[in-house]
Amino acid sequence: MELVTTVGELRAKLDELANARSGKAAGRRALRGLVPTMGALHAGHRSLLERMCHECGVNVVSIFVNPRQFGPREDLGRYPRTLPADMALCEAAGVHIVFAPAMDEVYPAGYCTNVHVAGLTERWCGAARPGHFDGVTTVVAKLFLMCAPDRAYFGEKDYQQLVAVRRMARDLDIPVEIAACPTVREVDELALSSRNAYLSPAERAVAPRLYAGLAGMQERFADGITSVRELVAAGEEIISGGSEAGPEGPAFRMEYLAVVDPSTLEPRETALAGDRALVAAYLGSTRLIDNVALGTEPNKVRGKC
Amino acid sequence: MELVTTVGELRAKLDELANARSGKAAGRRALRGLVPTMGALHAGHRSLLERMCHECGVNVVSIFVNPRQFGPREDLGRYPRTLPADMALCEAAGVHIVFAPAMDEVYPAGYCTNVHVAGLTERWCGAARPGHFDGVTTVVAKLFLMCAPDRAYFGEKDYQQLVAVRRMARDLDIPVEIAACPTVREVDELALSSRNAYLSPAERAVAPRLYAGLAGMQERFADGITSVRELVAAGEEIISGGSEAGPEGPAFRMEYLAVVDPSTLEPRETALAGDRALVAAYLGSTRLIDNVALGTEPNKVRGKC
Repeated sequence: MELVTTVGELRAKLDELANARSGKAAGRRALRGLVPTMGALHAGHRSLLERMCHECGVNVVSIFVNPRQFGPREDLGRYPRTLPADMALCEAAGVHIVFAPAMDEVYPAGYCTNVHVAGLTERWCGAARPGHFDGVTTVVAKLFLMCAPDRAYFGEKDYQQLVAVRRMARDLDIPVEIAACPTVREVDELALSSRNAYLSPAERAVAPRLYAGLAGMQERFADGITSVRELVAAGEEIISGGSEAGPEGPAFRMEYLAVVDPSTLEPRETALAGDRALVAAYLGSTRLIDNVALGTEPNKVRGKC
Repeated sequence: MELVTTVGELRAKLDELANARSGKAAGRRALRGLVPTMGALHAGHRSLLERMCHECGVNVVSIFVNPRQFGPREDLGRYPRTLPADMALCEAAGVHIVFAPAMDEVYPAGYCTNVHVAGLTERWCGAARPGHFDGVTTVVAKLFLMCAPDRAYFGEKDYQQLVAVRRMARDLDIPVEIAACPTVREVDELALSSRNAYLSPAERAVAPRLYAGLAGMQERFADGITSVRELVAAGEEIISGGSEAGPEGPAFRMEYLAVVDPSTLEPRETALAGDRALVAAYLGSTRLIDNVALGTEPNKVRGKC
């Protein structure tokens, strides 16, 4: 595995690997994979890396904490940076290249271009985090163009990001396939996130209710309830702790809980199989998100909230 | 030469040509060139095509009248469309592929992505034509990603477009070299433009004054005048016809006349060699633009205004 920090080195190394691979496979070009990350890699990222290394012959992970996707009051400064551990995880998964560029390699002096996906990115997390998705789609477009992957892997955990990146790549004719990978969860079904590290023990204890609320919506949809108003009310009751909620424990502050078209992210009034239930909520100062598909079985919650 | 209309056909044909070329040249990959156009090709475009065909081994011209770069009151409907003549001109120059996609090949249903170059595109033509440069940088990014050229050719005539496209390609890490080609002029130095066809005979007769004004600024700069206020006043006097202007002939309505930094397009107060003098003005309902570099010799005006 090699660590490269400039676009020039990255492209040179990719050419070298492509030539080596095509020699071996009698002219058949090895698929090139990319997992774009902000580092602080966890088992969720590991599942993306492992799938990439299983499917592709040339495997790249980018690690770049992208300031343009953080709002002015967000956690850019305290976002976890764990490069040595990230490198070890990449090496173990079979990654060939870790690309960890410095800020001015990605945004040199005079930089002034923005990639905006209209509509899709203006609601849900986009409404709460203005500019966030512009930061994401711009840096991901750049990473695609620096690395030229055949396939790039994104977790379903950041569902709106996945949809926006897929739309951006399609709209700009970037010849890359976007592979969506299922959310990886803790034993109590809390979705893995680098931001879970911010939770206090008491917050961590109630955090799995977020998934439990979504799972409750899946169950009610399976029982034949399609009114989004009813589904959302049921989810909210579970997430708030319902009748069990005591005044002593931490409580979620809901940002949104919605059922949406899985491609356009437009809100539904009547849910259809395949629709996505999306949630964002704060525990203290930590913002958590999660989502599930309606019409599929919820995971059995293995721990308890 | 082949006419293709879909991105799939374009990429297949490019692969085919690349394989054929690399076979011939013992593994050395032929440079791929692109000239993006809106058709209505004239001798200005021909100079781009000829340079491309001289420098590159695989030569593509795109022809697409891009609605996103026209304002709601602009001339999209009456913009000239001359595909058979354009094809003949491409064939004669040695072009291999003409790519003329339909609207929904470029902007399929659900399309919603925009590429914006901030700062650069907000002044001069951008101020008069809001959204115009977003339309340009977005479609050119798409054409670059559809065609993957090593080198793309743009005329200096549309100077702000050239600078914006170069910035966009650099900022998004698109591995393409932007080649700038000198403005081609009529015998009386009017810059060639598809829009010159809109001019009445009387308007056409005074149109060369636009270049004469810029040439006057070059001469004064060569004489040691660096005050932009003085240079602009001299240019404006020439363009308005000065003391010769009679009440009977058509008159220019100036939109802007400025001296700018050639990379950032920021206005200067004191001109430096290499700065660009830019002008936009209307003759009747026809908007004309032109520009020159200060510190270079003006063309000898071969006709007269």
